[in-house]
Amino acid sequence: MKGSESASTAKDTSRRAVVRAAVATTGTIAGLAALGTTPGVAATGAAAAGRRSPERGPRIGILLHDGYSLLDPTGPAEILSRLPGATATMLAERRGPVRTDTRDVAVVAARSIDEIDQLDVLVVPGAGERGTREAMGNPVLLDWIRRIDRHTRWTTSVCTGSLVLAAAGLLRGREATTYWASKDFLAPFGATYVPRRYVHSGKFITGAGVSAGQDMALHLAQQIAGDTVAQAIQPAVEYDPEPPFDTGSPDKADPELQQLALRLPADSQK
Amino acid sequence: MKGSESASTAKDTSRRAVVRAAVATTGTIAGLAALGTTPGVAATGAAAAGRRSPERGPRIGILLHDGYSLLDPTGPAEILSRLPGATATMLAERRGPVRTDTRDVAVVAARSIDEIDQLDVLVVPGAGERGTREAMGNPVLLDWIRRIDRHTRWTTSVCTGSLVLAAAGLLRGREATTYWASKDFLAPFGATYVPRRYVHSGKFITGAGVSAGQDMALHLAQQIAGDTVAQAIQPAVEYDPEPPFDTGSPDKADPELQQLALRLPADSQK
Repeated sequence: MKGSESASTAKDTSRRAVVRAAVATTGTIAGLAALGTTPGVAATGAAAAGRRSPERGPRIGILLHDGYSLLDPTGPAEILSRLPGATATMLAERRGPVRTDTRDVAVVAARSIDEIDQLDVLVVPGAGERGTREAMGNPVLLDWIRRIDRHTRWTTSVCTGSLVLAAAGLLRGREATTYWASKDFLAPFGATYVPRRYVHSGKFITGAGVSAGQDMALHLAQQIAGDTVAQAIQPAVEYDPEPPFDTGSPDKADPELQQLALRLPADSQK
Repeated sequence: MKGSESASTAKDTSRRAVVRAAVATTGTIAGLAALGTTPGVAATGAAAAGRRSPERGPRIGILLHDGYSLLDPTGPAEILSRLPGATATMLAERRGPVRTDTRDVAVVAARSIDEIDQLDVLVVPGAGERGTREAMGNPVLLDWIRRIDRHTRWTTSVCTGSLVLAAAGLLRGREATTYWASKDFLAPFGATYVPRRYVHSGKFITGAGVSAGQDMALHLAQQIAGDTVAQAIQPAVEYDPEPPFDTGSPDKADPELQQLALRLPADSQK
């Protein structure tokens, strides 16, 4: 994205027709026709595992609890769903739409937790004040998390999702991270807060606030499928971030900005 | 996130009780009780506009067309929903769940496009091959986009969403960006591809692939609400990215990695 490609022009009308035809018939918008889509073409070990197969790829469950923050589950889902053979399934106490912290948006839980006995990967997103508190105090959810965790290969969280894992008793004696403003709430559950983008401790990987789920998920992708696949998922989702400001973490934001950073989400949840 | 905060410890049992009580009763998980939640405390001009009010904040419509890529609409929604008074509404041809490119996940369209005559901000997400092609060839969708665009303050896109705007005839004579592998598909519609994270041309802001919607949305937040609010949204969503690899754009990925970067999403959509 740093300017090495020259811009196309719209001058060549014969090319226009070709491209339009291609769009209409063979579908090369994402460059796939040129590359072929049969397995085995890519010169990496990942190619053979590239077909979609729930039996072979990781079964990933993402737990939507009421009032989650939209990017918390969807960032990791976008990334982890590109793992060879993966299935990424949204789960909740009950099947059906589950609303975000602002209540404006709902993602559908395809399965209820009652229907799920085993997962390779559990992702617990974070939420606003209300949603986090409710999840931390919900014995049905915490019991299910503990039960599923017995057999997961990876148990992970984004943002205040780590407080939910902590409330389930899973982070005792471990290092973990969480949303910057919530850092004091891990210690009461025996976990030690570490101010990092994500913290990997045994089979537990906890991500920092909201957008950190993407970095956490890429690290997890690397653990599951190796360097090459994880490195390829980054250009697949064009993850070459250029935040317009350098204010993304609390040590880069002055106290007034930190206050406003907490107020804006809180107000959006009223 | 660069280590300026010291880690909490779990040694102080009296502190544990205090924090637990706070969680159970006054809710300080996101630090809100300490800061207060009444308007006017934050020392910025944005505080007065902080209450949720559809009349006063931007009406943002995010168009879910079948087969969109999950992060394309949800990254901008997470960010733009924190604008003072904003409403972020998922729209589609028909109300109800709309499935992503992998078909594993569905976000609910709260309104059909028939119900929406005016928006302040339109966001058109991108999709995989099938979804992009279908949206570009859907006259109902393209007509609605043209009609809504007449009165928007901002018309925006993520990833191949710019091809949909282009197919609607809105980017003729403009610079724009899109997913790196789709860059040749803007020129036939009279738009000039620019390899940047986002491209701002008049009231049109187009973002590069998938994750670039977050940078595009922060730039848009700055245009709508000014520097301070946009700068505060970054720590609100802890957007201080640390990708584990430096392979996120095509000029940083060798040809084999580029092939795999296209194959993994394609395989996940089978």
